[in-house]
Amino acid sequence: MSQYLVDPDTHAVFSTDKATKADLLRAEHLFLGLNCFEPGQTQRIHAHHGADKFYLILSGKARMAVGDDRFEAGAGALVWAPADVPHGVDLALERTVMLIGMSPPP
Amino acid sequence: MSQYLVDPDTHAVFSTDKATKADLLRAEHLFLGLNCFEPGQTQRIHAHHGADKFYLILSGKARMAVGDDRFEAGAGALVWAPADVPHGVDLALERTVMLIGMSPPP
Repeated sequence: MSQYLVDPDTHAVFSTDKATKADLLRAEHLFLGLNCFEPGQTQRIHAHHGADKFYLILSGKARMAVGDDRFEAGAGALVWAPADVPHGVDLALERTVMLIGMSPPP
Repeated sequence: MSQYLVDPDTHAVFSTDKATKADLLRAEHLFLGLNCFEPGQTQRIHAHHGADKFYLILSGKARMAVGDDRFEAGAGALVWAPADVPHGVDLALERTVMLIGMSPPP
């Protein structure tokens, strides 16, 4: 298989203890990974100084927090947090897998 | 709706003349958009000097080109091209929508 082809589904891992992360790729300017949640799990609100971030919901549904906004995002939705804007996952409403991207990489 | 929530599906546009593009968001360090193909359409091989790029296949299937590699990528697959590595879409095998990301933005 090509080094340039990645199947995110095969990297998803879940834990009943807490939300998990998996790295997919790290380039000079861009990092991509997965955030995986069981229903009821959360990701604390945080901000990345000088780094833009997005979440693409691959499966499931979650209530997201970006800035002062709170909203539900289901499979196919794109959520983004410009540099320095606080963001997180208020609550995973289902088993949820998110592709996340950050630039520059952490 | 929150300014931080985007539904890529609603931005997909198709043309029988050629593959189309749609911008989704442009932040300081990151650009996200869509590339939309009818079956049989292509994207010429090109490279981005100093910018990392990824394609996430949202729907459909295409034969991709990255470096010397040629491979099929279907819905859910992630394809990436590090800065300066030539890449393109050899052939869309179905009606195909790809989320693309580039960092830094073009």
